[in-house]
Amino acid sequence: MNIVNLDHISANPLLPEVKAAMIAAINDDLFNPSSQHRKGEQAAEKLDRSRHAVMRLINAANPKEVVFTSSGTESVNHAIKGVAMANAKKGKHIVTTNIEHNAVIRSIRRLKGQGYTVTSLPVDASGRVSPEAVAAAISDETVLVSVMHSNNETGTIQPIEEIAKITRKRKVIFHTDAVDSVGVVPMDVQKLGVDLMSFASNPYYGPPGVGGLYIRRGTLVWPILDGGVQENNKRAGAENLIGIIGMGTAAEYALKDMDTRLSHLNGLKRKFLKELPGAIDEYLINTHPEHSLPNMVSVSVQHIEGESVMLMLDDENFAVSTRSACATGSLRASHVLLSLGLSHADAQGTLVLSFGIENTETEIDQFLAALKKVVTTLREISPLYNKRSSPEA
Amino acid sequence: MNIVNLDHISANPLLPEVKAAMIAAINDDLFNPSSQHRKGEQAAEKLDRSRHAVMRLINAANPKEVVFTSSGTESVNHAIKGVAMANAKKGKHIVTTNIEHNAVIRSIRRLKGQGYTVTSLPVDASGRVSPEAVAAAISDETVLVSVMHSNNETGTIQPIEEIAKITRKRKVIFHTDAVDSVGVVPMDVQKLGVDLMSFASNPYYGPPGVGGLYIRRGTLVWPILDGGVQENNKRAGAENLIGIIGMGTAAEYALKDMDTRLSHLNGLKRKFLKELPGAIDEYLINTHPEHSLPNMVSVSVQHIEGESVMLMLDDENFAVSTRSACATGSLRASHVLLSLGLSHADAQGTLVLSFGIENTETEIDQFLAALKKVVTTLREISPLYNKRSSPEA
Repeated sequence: MNIVNLDHISANPLLPEVKAAMIAAINDDLFNPSSQHRKGEQAAEKLDRSRHAVMRLINAANPKEVVFTSSGTESVNHAIKGVAMANAKKGKHIVTTNIEHNAVIRSIRRLKGQGYTVTSLPVDASGRVSPEAVAAAISDETVLVSVMHSNNETGTIQPIEEIAKITRKRKVIFHTDAVDSVGVVPMDVQKLGVDLMSFASNPYYGPPGVGGLYIRRGTLVWPILDGGVQENNKRAGAENLIGIIGMGTAAEYALKDMDTRLSHLNGLKRKFLKELPGAIDEYLINTHPEHSLPNMVSVSVQHIEGESVMLMLDDENFAVSTRSACATGSLRASHVLLSLGLSHADAQGTLVLSFGIENTETEIDQFLAALKKVVTTLREISPLYNKRSSPEA
Repeated sequence: MNIVNLDHISANPLLPEVKAAMIAAINDDLFNPSSQHRKGEQAAEKLDRSRHAVMRLINAANPKEVVFTSSGTESVNHAIKGVAMANAKKGKHIVTTNIEHNAVIRSIRRLKGQGYTVTSLPVDASGRVSPEAVAAAISDETVLVSVMHSNNETGTIQPIEEIAKITRKRKVIFHTDAVDSVGVVPMDVQKLGVDLMSFASNPYYGPPGVGGLYIRRGTLVWPILDGGVQENNKRAGAENLIGIIGMGTAAEYALKDMDTRLSHLNGLKRKFLKELPGAIDEYLINTHPEHSLPNMVSVSVQHIEGESVMLMLDDENFAVSTRSACATGSLRASHVLLSLGLSHADAQGTLVLSFGIENTETEIDQFLAALKKVVTTLREISPLYNKRSSPEA
């Protein structure tokens, strides 16, 4: 029995064209792009082609502004630690938000142990940070502002362009963690005005464990991996050439198919939100109605536990997430949802649905039916739910 | 026309079994190993199998001591910076050698900018560091000794076991960069006595851009990639699952076929060294006659430039290297060869041959003939050579 994947944020399948390109790379036995003979040159050409595809996807001004990394997490670590350390003489203050991904939170925490100070800004009930609050938080000591483009648990998009206007005026380096946005919605680093942008390959059907970092020319940032001169001297280490070829191919298709995908995904999301009230009641939507990704919805189903819903949906052959897959292993309620003002109980009942290009409207119908069944069953046996409903009885 | 690859240090082809395993992983669309449903569990099982294969290859005591990284370079950065920063309260002194790979040199240089001091030890004319010199260099401030297992330009192997006896007695953490040794010669971290060991996948016919770091249980080292809880909380970031599956498969075969490979490679190396005097004269062998890898020979062909020899051999369809592929882009003479006491001129005439399991004795014969032809041609037009020979004329 096939599983209907409504958890693309955990892992996307690879595009058939990405598979074909990676398999061809494997069968080709391409040499090290840094090696000095003919097969090395062929590899260097493949690497260059991928770099140009990614450059076009994010509209960088120059291919040298694109650095391939091993993941969005590596990109984030590189950007945050690299900027903080390279600019330490100017100051040791960082501005960020309360709803960042763990890669950002823990990179900054590492720096706090080394004398850096941090201002972490709240978000409003809709999940957005205020550009005015960013402006107010910047001091003469500030060397970096890091605000995510879209949130990995709600899909809500931040006002990055407005924040960039402030950071440019104040001459502070601005990094955005755009792992869940790049390849999913149109992204243009020149229009956004960011100095650094972290992204990965898997959100647009490229392989896992391959990422990219946009570094605007002239931005002072140290590598975190020192050694050889790969990646224009910005990131040492033998290239994951097979993965990078997959990422480049995925980037080409993400750009080419962007409009079709947006239209399909927005259709699925609209349908789900419109028909959800017919399936269940007493839920909260944590995703911004307007400023959000087309492929993600966060729903807090009240009075039951998300973990149980997820496991029962798995039995019904639907894959969903209760929180960021990267956060698995933590038993605490999501810091993102608590920042939105949710209670612990509502946070624990939260499902994250992330649609993919292969999902169909029929699957949304089937999912709503399964969700109705699972929620009804769980609420029947839930002391929380029965306690809540007893006063009305 | 097929190129005869005598430059396996730049890039090894993938084993057919590695290709098959990676292609199967691509076609399987495995989910994120951290995700919470069934396909995530399948991915976690594959990851675990690879970890056990690598654990057996290096004889680690526990699979949790194996951390997958994106390259040998990342492993080295993790080990060196991670130990230095985690142990900064104890002291800020590091002991290393003059012949390390750029990943080690530049990781340490980065730390020097942050107040660390370094003692870098010379090697003798045979290319080996003295354990007594390491012992003498260790002070109360020393937090890390980093000595490579085998050199990436000469193949000479260092007395790691003897050095480990000293570091254990002095309670100093010991890291070895074993990128060119693991999977090529038998390696046993328990017998070696090292605390950390960096390695990669490609030297034993796994994919490029995948590495590993052995961290002995109880060793105090910080991650360099902070974020999620992957790799037992030691290295954050989505796993390059396809690459790791390739590395695991390569590790299984490296262990199973170790004796056959050693015998074949040692045979090629012996044949080459025995028959070289019949092809050319006036050369130096920079590889230790006894303590060295079975697959590598460094030859300095005197009175000509290695770059020219390499290019002309490429025309004859033989791929060789003039220096570490990772060092490409640098025009300076190799620091390794200068450390051995070679003149700049001899260093520039150095070829690094690295044999692979698919090379044959016939290819060695063909290569020696091509080398004779190329060296004769180049010396005929070389002012250096003619100047040298004129006094005798």
